[in-house]
Amino acid sequence: MSLITPRTPPGTMELLPRQQVAFQRMLDTIRRGYERFGFVPVETPVFETVDTLLTKSGGETEKQVYFVQSTGAIQQGNKPELALRFDLTVPLARYVAEHERDLAFPFRRYQIQRVYRGERAQRGRFREFYQCDIDVIGKDSLSAHYDAEIPAVIHHVFTELNFGGFTINVNNRKILLGLLDGLGVADADTRVLVLREIDKLDKIGQDKVRASLLGLGVTEHAADTILSLIAMKGTNAETLAALGALDIETDLFREGVGELTTVIEGLKAFQVPEGTVRINLAIARGLDYYTGTVYETFLNDHPGIGSVCSGGRYENLASHYTKSKLPGVGISIGATRLFYQLMEAGIIKDATPTAQVLVTQMDPALSADYFRMASELRAAGINTEIQLDGGKIAKQMKYADRAGIPVVLLMGSDEQARGTATLKHLVKGEQVEVPLTELAARARALLEG
Amino acid sequence: MSLITPRTPPGTMELLPRQQVAFQRMLDTIRRGYERFGFVPVETPVFETVDTLLTKSGGETEKQVYFVQSTGAIQQGNKPELALRFDLTVPLARYVAEHERDLAFPFRRYQIQRVYRGERAQRGRFREFYQCDIDVIGKDSLSAHYDAEIPAVIHHVFTELNFGGFTINVNNRKILLGLLDGLGVADADTRVLVLREIDKLDKIGQDKVRASLLGLGVTEHAADTILSLIAMKGTNAETLAALGALDIETDLFREGVGELTTVIEGLKAFQVPEGTVRINLAIARGLDYYTGTVYETFLNDHPGIGSVCSGGRYENLASHYTKSKLPGVGISIGATRLFYQLMEAGIIKDATPTAQVLVTQMDPALSADYFRMASELRAAGINTEIQLDGGKIAKQMKYADRAGIPVVLLMGSDEQARGTATLKHLVKGEQVEVPLTELAARARALLEG
Repeated sequence: MSLITPRTPPGTMELLPRQQVAFQRMLDTIRRGYERFGFVPVETPVFETVDTLLTKSGGETEKQVYFVQSTGAIQQGNKPELALRFDLTVPLARYVAEHERDLAFPFRRYQIQRVYRGERAQRGRFREFYQCDIDVIGKDSLSAHYDAEIPAVIHHVFTELNFGGFTINVNNRKILLGLLDGLGVADADTRVLVLREIDKLDKIGQDKVRASLLGLGVTEHAADTILSLIAMKGTNAETLAALGALDIETDLFREGVGELTTVIEGLKAFQVPEGTVRINLAIARGLDYYTGTVYETFLNDHPGIGSVCSGGRYENLASHYTKSKLPGVGISIGATRLFYQLMEAGIIKDATPTAQVLVTQMDPALSADYFRMASELRAAGINTEIQLDGGKIAKQMKYADRAGIPVVLLMGSDEQARGTATLKHLVKGEQVEVPLTELAARARALLEG
Repeated sequence: MSLITPRTPPGTMELLPRQQVAFQRMLDTIRRGYERFGFVPVETPVFETVDTLLTKSGGETEKQVYFVQSTGAIQQGNKPELALRFDLTVPLARYVAEHERDLAFPFRRYQIQRVYRGERAQRGRFREFYQCDIDVIGKDSLSAHYDAEIPAVIHHVFTELNFGGFTINVNNRKILLGLLDGLGVADADTRVLVLREIDKLDKIGQDKVRASLLGLGVTEHAADTILSLIAMKGTNAETLAALGALDIETDLFREGVGELTTVIEGLKAFQVPEGTVRINLAIARGLDYYTGTVYETFLNDHPGIGSVCSGGRYENLASHYTKSKLPGVGISIGATRLFYQLMEAGIIKDATPTAQVLVTQMDPALSADYFRMASELRAAGINTEIQLDGGKIAKQMKYADRAGIPVVLLMGSDEQARGTATLKHLVKGEQVEVPLTELAARARALLEG
């Protein structure tokens, strides 16, 4: 029989076991953080019907969609009826519209699942990746206080993740749009282009942005006003004061400033330190979806990774599926890319495996004792593997070392006669002979010490 | 704009939040059990290349496969290159072959992910469902003691799941095949048909099985010998004794009896009570894949659900992808079907949601106090939601009730003046006024009491 070369499909992140343990711990930390703030879990199927998924005008989105078809459907030449989700927002909209009567509003859900995009295969670009989303959905209305809660949750989660310093950038799109109104930039196409230039500020610098704005027909006064705002580097209080002092009186602008003020004040109530949330008026984000507050989060020591957690406020979640008005605010951690980049940077290392203790079989005659000890350790909550193949002790030790199991239990007939066993910590190089009556406690002490 | 009716794709299990919490707890219990025995996690991509997935001769499997294609590939009329996995065994084989040099053997992995089959849509039949697999893979060889460990893990997991009594049925296919050798049933096609009849015993009864066997050309003596064995209802020791006393001397039969004896003895060493594991010689299972020990698990009070956890020993995991010989033994819990059936039967009920306490806003002037209390409860490890929309207290209470949040915290200006708050347990109907200095401890007592 000729062999097939085994290969992971391109554009996916497949991990070795100890990397997988590290990844799982990261997802667990995110989940625990989301639950700490009372978000409830939702899971949706990996595919949606094509009708549901492709409500938008096609174009960019549709090009990246993976369609799903059974053999029978392909043979019959049918058009695909199913497609893999490309984010968790469309499934959420469908879910909320479908189950509306069974949900309590404001509906606070978290969802940690994989999404799929037919990206060109490229190092660090993924076709399959985890998103870890939270959203709060109101019925008819939703207070701007929730716009403050979202970064408070992210602050909690990233503190727990312990990847070093991070900054949650906050803005409100009403401020930018209201400013353009006030400055007389009224043409819709021009506004889109102006916002796109603003978003480039951090990459291309003030001079180039200014030149582009003038090229778009924006007056010098307007361009300078915009730049003075978006390039501002003050404290949040200073930025809010500067916004208040501006000679812009459009309702939209004032609304945006009001909401941003609510967010910044709310964050104090949530006890989020000022330094981790920063008003950044240059953040515009995706154009049509977000309507108010927007977020982008950066790791201070790894700006090159880009935003690791983004989101914002939207006017109406599910207008394609229901007449109910469902405003919401949410954010998403791109866990696969974040993990991959931090692993590449050496920040995330292989975790210790799930097994904490390996019970070896030094003397086959003592087999019953080994089993009893393994059960005892498990009953005490210690993850324990028992070597069942037996064989040379050196081979058993080598296995423990290769698998990364930190502690090995050894007992020969001498020790058995004394009522003891030896616990050896392979990483620390420590070895202790302990009474069998204290086995679990001493193993735990060695693991934790 | 015309609305699209929101609908979950047929053949998938989508849960409401409190059902999802219950499901998640079930998966967590399974995972914790697997980890307790030192299994390491693996996740593979939802799709594999078609080459990898469809190594088998097509036929039944291929008919149920979902193919995955991007828009571009469909437009170009290409054949699909990717397909959704239909089990976790093929991806495991590919994974082990691909990462062989980086793994420690025996390789003990667990994998909890969804798989996909293009089943005809039907109530209780799923196109997308979770499998929770464990496998131990040896290099070149793997001791039969591991065949005893697998049911020990399942015993631990099902005890923790607490769905009532369960029975793990164990058999060894070598016994059946060796018996057929010894009884002169040598024709390969006939053997396949005989095993298929044997598997029907519990459904159609002895008389019909006997008639079928005779119809297949099996002698009366052979049919009676087979039936006397497979219908045996003794203790494990009695069954093993009866097997030992049989006048069958083929190597395969003796090997099978030897391995079964090892499993039954091993289970004693693992302290698994005799009653939960039972030799059942009528279990034949899938024909080509399993080569030795086989398992099927039934819930004693819900036999109608069928086997909830099945598996067995195989000779060589990854012969399609590598020349290495990789014998293994494994088992799989079909979590989606199990959960769905137990929910339908009323055994699994809605869980309490993730939020344990709702902090209400009785008096907007005390907002800062509410935020501080919510943070305090969270810091103490209590999942806490704070009502940010405010509004009438009756509406806030109604929300807590609808969402199923068990405890509500209320504080008006009177209480604030006294330095207290009121905790109300909505399910128990209990209400206590507690000093703010003891808030977290008293909330925990109320939740746990």
